Amino acid sequence: MPETLIKVDLTQSAYDNDMVHNRWHPDIPMVAYVKPGADFIVETYDWTGGFIKNNDSADDVRDIDLSIVHFLSGPIGVEGAEPGDLLVVDLLDIGAKPESQWGFNGFFSKKNGGGFLTEHFPQAQKSIWDFEGMFTKSRHVPGVRFPGLIHPGLIGCLPDPKMLETWNTREKALYDTDPERVPALATLPFGPTAHMGRLKGDAKDAAAATGARTVPPREHGGNCDIKDLSRGSKIYFPVYVPGAGLSMGDLHFSQGDGEITFCGAIEMAGWVHLKVELIKDGMAKYGIKNPIFKPSPITPKYDDHLIFEGISVDESGGQHYLDVHIAYRQACLNAIEYLKKFGYSGAQAYSILGTAPVQGHISGVVDIPNACATLWIPTKIFEFDINPGADGPTQFLDGSIQMPLSPDL
Amino acid sequence: MPETLIKVDLTQSAYDNDMVHNRWHPDIPMVAYVKPGADFIVETYDWTGGFIKNNDSADDVRDIDLSIVHFLSGPIGVEGAEPGDLLVVDLLDIGAKPESQWGFNGFFSKKNGGGFLTEHFPQAQKSIWDFEGMFTKSRHVPGVRFPGLIHPGLIGCLPDPKMLETWNTREKALYDTDPERVPALATLPFGPTAHMGRLKGDAKDAAAATGARTVPPREHGGNCDIKDLSRGSKIYFPVYVPGAGLSMGDLHFSQGDGEITFCGAIEMAGWVHLKVELIKDGMAKYGIKNPIFKPSPITPKYDDHLIFEGISVDESGGQHYLDVHIAYRQACLNAIEYLKKFGYSGAQAYSILGTAPVQGHISGVVDIPNACATLWIPTKIFEFDINPGADGPTQFLDGSIQMPLSPDL
Amino acid sequence: MPETLIKVDLTQSAYDNDMVHNRWHPDIPMVAYVKPGADFIVETYDWTGGFIKNNDSADDVRDIDLSIVHFLSGPIGVEGAEPGDLLVVDLLDIGAKPESQWGFNGFFSKKNGGGFLTEHFPQAQKSIWDFEGMFTKSRHVPGVRFPGLIHPGLIGCLPDPKMLETWNTREKALYDTDPERVPALATLPFGPTAHMGRLKGDAKDAAAATGARTVPPREHGGNCDIKDLSRGSKIYFPVYVPGAGLSMGDLHFSQGDGEITFCGAIEMAGWVHLKVELIKDGMAKYGIKNPIFKPSPITPKYDDHLIFEGISVDESGGQHYLDVHIAYRQACLNAIEYLKKFGYSGAQAYSILGTAPVQGHISGVVDIPNACATLWIPTKIFEFDINPGADGPTQFLDGSIQMPLSPDL
Amino acid sequence: MPETLIKVDLTQSAYDNDMVHNRWHPDIPMVAYVKPGADFIVETYDWTGGFIKNNDSADDVRDIDLSIVHFLSGPIGVEGAEPGDLLVVDLLDIGAKPESQWGFNGFFSKKNGGGFLTEHFPQAQKSIWDFEGMFTKSRHVPGVRFPGLIHPGLIGCLPDPKMLETWNTREKALYDTDPERVPALATLPFGPTAHMGRLKGDAKDAAAATGARTVPPREHGGNCDIKDLSRGSKIYFPVYVPGAGLSMGDLHFSQGDGEITFCGAIEMAGWVHLKVELIKDGMAKYGIKNPIFKPSPITPKYDDHLIFEGISVDESGGQHYLDVHIAYRQACLNAIEYLKKFGYSGAQAYSILGTAPVQGHISGVVDIPNACATLWIPTKIFEFDINPGADGPTQFLDGSIQMPLSPDL
Repeated sequence: MPETLIKVDLTQSAYDNDMVHNRWHPDIPMVAYVKPGADFIVETYDWTGGFIKNNDSADDVRDIDLSIVHFLSGPIGVEGAEPGDLLVVDLLDIGAKPESQWGFNGFFSKKNGGGFLTEHFPQAQKSIWDFEGMFTKSRHVPGVRFPGLIHPGLIGCLPDPKMLETWNTREKALYDTDPERVPALATLPFGPTAHMGRLKGDAKDAAAATGARTVPPREHGGNCDIKDLSRGSKIYFPVYVPGAGLSMGDLHFSQGDGEITFCGAIEMAGWVHLKVELIKDGMAKYGIKNPIFKPSPITPKYDDHLIFEGISVDESGGQHYLDVHIAYRQACLNAIEYLKKFGYSGAQAYSILGTAPVQGHISGVVDIPNACATLWIPTKIFEFDINPGADGPTQFLDGSIQMPLSPDL
Repeated sequence: MPETLIKVDLTQSAYDNDMVHNRWHPDIPMVAYVKPGADFIVETYDWTGGFIKNNDSADDVRDIDLSIVHFLSGPIGVEGAEPGDLLVVDLLDIGAKPESQWGFNGFFSKKNGGGFLTEHFPQAQKSIWDFEGMFTKSRHVPGVRFPGLIHPGLIGCLPDPKMLETWNTREKALYDTDPERVPALATLPFGPTAHMGRLKGDAKDAAAATGARTVPPREHGGNCDIKDLSRGSKIYFPVYVPGAGLSMGDLHFSQGDGEITFCGAIEMAGWVHLKVELIKDGMAKYGIKNPIFKPSPITPKYDDHLIFEGISVDESGGQHYLDVHIAYRQACLNAIEYLKKFGYSGAQAYSILGTAPVQGHISGVVDIPNACATLWIPTKIFEFDINPGADGPTQFLDGSIQMPLSPDL
Repeated sequence: MPETLIKVDLTQSAYDNDMVHNRWHPDIPMVAYVKPGADFIVETYDWTGGFIKNNDSADDVRDIDLSIVHFLSGPIGVEGAEPGDLLVVDLLDIGAKPESQWGFNGFFSKKNGGGFLTEHFPQAQKSIWDFEGMFTKSRHVPGVRFPGLIHPGLIGCLPDPKMLETWNTREKALYDTDPERVPALATLPFGPTAHMGRLKGDAKDAAAATGARTVPPREHGGNCDIKDLSRGSKIYFPVYVPGAGLSMGDLHFSQGDGEITFCGAIEMAGWVHLKVELIKDGMAKYGIKNPIFKPSPITPKYDDHLIFEGISVDESGGQHYLDVHIAYRQACLNAIEYLKKFGYSGAQAYSILGTAPVQGHISGVVDIPNACATLWIPTKIFEFDINPGADGPTQFLDGSIQMPLSPDL
Repeated sequence: MPETLIKVDLTQSAYDNDMVHNRWHPDIPMVAYVKPGADFIVETYDWTGGFIKNNDSADDVRDIDLSIVHFLSGPIGVEGAEPGDLLVVDLLDIGAKPESQWGFNGFFSKKNGGGFLTEHFPQAQKSIWDFEGMFTKSRHVPGVRFPGLIHPGLIGCLPDPKMLETWNTREKALYDTDPERVPALATLPFGPTAHMGRLKGDAKDAAAATGARTVPPREHGGNCDIKDLSRGSKIYFPVYVPGAGLSMGDLHFSQGDGEITFCGAIEMAGWVHLKVELIKDGMAKYGIKNPIFKPSPITPKYDDHLIFEGISVDESGGQHYLDVHIAYRQACLNAIEYLKKFGYSGAQAYSILGTAPVQGHISGVVDIPNACATLWIPTKIFEFDINPGADGPTQFLDGSIQMPLSPDL
């Protein structure tokens, strides 16, 4: 087996592991160096560093301090990498830690982060998903079982100071347009809970004060939560600092397009086996600003889908101009209504959309004023037939199984 | 062969064909009735009724009066269909008219409709695509060839008066927020160019004055421009009026997700072979508001893609809140920059994204403040290798072939 | 539309069409010439020239004189083609004749040709398959419906005299090992029913006496009955005579691997839209003896299969040495037994294996003494669930619909 | 993680592990019992018990005593299983042992087992394949890299005495038709090298004398070497003895249809995570004689292939009657000739066909006298373009890398 460059001990606080960090900053020291062509293994915490537990209460989802996320493993230096290069990363394989063969999905309370459908599901809820080899199922969401489309929700290289400043400036500007908003419009630097890896003392404090939060995807990739960045894919990352500084975490066993539940996907601790190469001066050669990638040749195959449409007219009938966000929300709500006819609770249906490998397509984006989005649900993830028929739906579930819910305090 | 219920003569004006209409209104008379279980053929004009010609000038794209679109064939009544039913439509096959084995794609001038990237491509341009059996290629866009994902851009049932009023009211409200905007925020009823099928005299004039324009997708489906509604798919449409009143048109030989060029897809005249069935009271049984569908078992298969990411930071660095529209625009712009490195003009690259079966995914929509969208380009549509490599891109095209452009007058 | 080089009139005897032939011989005159790069259309009879009718009797299948087959359209000359070249053929599209939207499948009597399972189904039977756009279903085989994998069962170039002699010599040698066998071991030249195209008089008689029968696939391709040579595929044929001399026929709407019913596939009359190119001296350049091809990017997609195994132990328990033929027969028989549990007759199940796009894989061929073959049935061609379950099979069919059978006279 | 029921120590002789056996016999004692519904892990040796080493000599392939194979882990009892039941096995995941991230492929000498193309490759050769996560490549076969289609070559339940006798009788009968043949027609019971698991003393000797060799696939499944029985698939096995007695081994990282190299596939030591269920009386309910299975939803996806045809005319021009074995051999030989044009040695090309996920289809099996088989090579396993073109092949390899060969002594 290749060398494990970074190990994590799930019984230890992520703050005590100096090969882990939870902010983006160019000053975070590399924890290891590899040569181009090397393959190696990196272990990671789940994105919350173990805060969410394998139990039947959503209290932890309700109570989590979201300023602590995401705990990333790295940064790893690549010899010879220079700003302007492309770092080519092969995700050779990814898995859960052997001692932790489960993951979680949840909805944050609207008061604590919310999510895509937070107006409809404003309270903290959670589902636990057990892994059976390449498959998963949940004791809280009956009737579905599917293979994992395992991927890192978050992976990318360190920003340089200029890019960091760009991020902080533009996000602060947005935040300032409505600083009281709940949930907030953006997550700003926050020193007290920053984990800056091996950076110590004043240097740490200075960096923590300006370190970019890990929540949004940005030019370097980062928290893209792209389900198709799955094991077997090949990614071309922009390099901004000497050595590149590759970090990763937020592993997902599976996720639907959009990661709509936000405490999203099936979140897990695990390991990534990866290989790195360089394309010198690749950013200019290929005109690259954001990462590009090639998907994996090994992914769950589903050829039969049930597809829901949504348009950019909101729940109260308000007309929006080519708003894909709203159109996709309508497609999701339409799917949830449909699934409820088979016996699912709305929360369970929402969880399925967040965890299973559903596709979300931007189907039409020019037919003013309505954008059209489609949500593709693979029919074979269900243990029963969810296709429409002349006889109407069969209620396969009796409602005896529900997802834990923890009301706001 | 099954009966051809509606025929169109491409040498005749669409306005002279009384089995065609270009507005949505419950008063438009059915042009034929079929029984559930019947299969039949419907011919259609291209969406502009033949205005765009197979030549090497974009003048027609620049000069078109967009209030004339879309010319739809129908409405067809289905015996026994009642409001609340689902009309199940099997798209058994679709093709171009034998005498018209070509299609067009174009960018409208920003002053006349615009498009997804109208700020970047503000002038009228056009490309012609010739069909070779199941495949297409363009004399204006070299180096690409792909099989058709043939589909109706527009299909749906007649609205009832209440739904029509809802549409008109909400779109007018949006329009009124910025009535001077170019392009307009919405397309409002417009009598002078209305074609109301067999409706004549005062009844026609009355209906024309309030008939909804066909541009946006709405609850009934309509102009969804969903590329995956392709031949072989099965669609479940809400029924609002007795007899359902199914109309269709705007056939596309192929299109990418989003139909981003707006004079979009590869537009063609052709025929649809379809079958209809009913699910009585299906809307309530399945909780259906918008159409749902199942994709075709026969579509072009591409397993290898090059995927571009975009985030909701606009071209000038402005930060937007989870705006998928902007994120997809960035992904498209990133792809265009990449393709230019291989010798394409920006316009040609834009055309490829509008015509080829590229996918647009809503990849992340909760990681505040950035939405993340991905654009998937199938690599095998190109006659050369567009993958990145250590040696940088090869410029396969010498720029000698360009797309016609017609500057604003 | 491209030019139709060869037309066939289904109301006319194939013998009266001089652009048709039913033997392979280098002296058959070209009926047309095309340039490399040309695309054109060729119409064809069904392989029997219209002998099998769309009715509910298998008498025609029982009574047919098999020395008349296959009626091929051609040969078409390609300018510049020389022996040793590769003729590159793009099957741009294929379809049924508009006036003939149906096909047939049947079992020949063991006394008149037989078939793969002739010991189990020794009598003439027939099923008629109606086309609904891209789909087909049969009034004789309920419960299945599938899209077409349309392909020419037979396509290839004229042999030169030396190759013709090789064919005749080796097949005669086999025939002579058991000349009384029923069905025969091989089909030898037979002048009386030969149709030599435009060859007339003594020249015709001479060629008819030695013209190779069209039944077997050979070095030039010919009657390969490869289902995956479907519309959209690209084939590289060896060229033996100046001008190549491309002929084709025996169109199939769909077929399973092996064409096991022999009166096989869903046989139809139709048209082929094709394009030809040359690779000069391609046979030597690429070491080509038999044709090679690339499959179509547009074929029916099935990701879920039920797979049956067979080994080279025959029905009476006899052990054979790595005999894939017997192994595949066992896999087919195993599948038929399985399907009977759902209510199909054996004949219906056999028909499904012959017509639907089932796969036959050579799974193991070295584990002495047993070869292992697998038969893959796509589960979604059935209108009900054929997967095994704890409760055992449900008998969906009541046996009221059966396939026509005509006992030997 | 689930319990590991059977562990193997690769540094220990397989003969010293009493949870392993290398013959089929009903008297071999169960090594563990599980309940229906249980999931658990089973480790296995490679099929030779470690005889073949990760080095650059083929001496081990030449010198192996093939009477020692295959070392299977088991048998495992399933509570409640009775003769006539179906044992449903979910292959939840499969992998290589962490300390053994490599596999081997080889050709046996014609004097010691041979293989599918032993007349063409009569001497012992070997290639070593290194694993990189889900991918593999070989230092002996340059230019190819592909993801694993990991599967057990051998899995099945214990026979009962009657079935065992059937096997031994019919195979002996075949063997006796040519007992001097090299390689032999069948592998007969052979006591001296038998490993009967926990069976000891006289009982062991008696069972060893009649224990069926593990080489051929049989009614119970066994050594089917079906590449598609891969991780994620679900298999329905006939049960013959109380408790079923499931054993498995001969893990393959990847293999082509036919396992044509015999020392075949990419052979490895590893582990299987599986789950078992029962369908009571399933054999009669579903008419099952041989196992049936459903393929995995997660397999390497290849949509582009280069396909070679073969017919049942042998290398010296001899005509055979519908012999699929010979037809597939010709397809393989045709592919090898083609690959040699790109710089591969014949042995390397043969290895690629044996290891990569190539498909072998029984394409036509009724067109007397020629069977037609097709070999499908996925084009994307190559690091260069192997498609034919007008310019002829490019010789990508310079012959500097060759496969080890050990001449017969």
